Amino acid sequence: MPSALTSHERDDALTRLSGWAFDASRNALYRRFEFDDFSEAFGFMTRIALEAEKCGHHPEWLNVYNRLEIWLTTHDAGNAVSALDIELATRIAALI
Amino acid sequence: MPSALTSHERDDALTRLSGWAFDASRNALYRRFEFDDFSEAFGFMTRIALEAEKCGHHPEWLNVYNRLEIWLTTHDAGNAVSALDIELATRIAALI
Repeated sequence: MPSALTSHERDDALTRLSGWAFDASRNALYRRFEFDDFSEAFGFMTRIALEAEKCGHHPEWLNVYNRLEIWLTTHDAGNAVSALDIELATRIAALI
Repeated sequence: MPSALTSHERDDALTRLSGWAFDASRNALYRRFEFDDFSEAFGFMTRIALEAEKCGHHPEWLNVYNRLEIWLTTHDAGNAVSALDIELATRIAALI
């Protein structure tokens, strides 16, 4: 069972995750991407989907045409940020 | 330029679109899907993405694991439901 990070652990991890922020209203890591068009946005989503399946952890994400918003939080840790979210955020960052 | 349907035209089209409803708060067609897991949900999203590109019209959609929520509205029609939304909803319905 994944456990919630302390706010110190979370903030420490965020210093190494450029582009990601903590969304306190959703208790989640948050990042917004903007692409040239839908094809590019969905192509990137597909790459994220493969990473998500590989690490067995999935994003909450909203896409509208070229815009993609991602929230990462762990249901099994009480809807809080866990090490799984840091791992998936790191994998997503590595795709860019 | 696509034009907004009248409420009569929209409601008439909805009678032929089983599973879809009108979300007045977003002035959009709305449908929620639930799948067995992320793989199945994302597979369905991929099929929708191909249809969206074919008809040059794209959804606003939110995915969390096995859940998918879709809103269809037309920015170029003043964020209202147009014939393009009916077309995309019909194509999505045909995938099931």
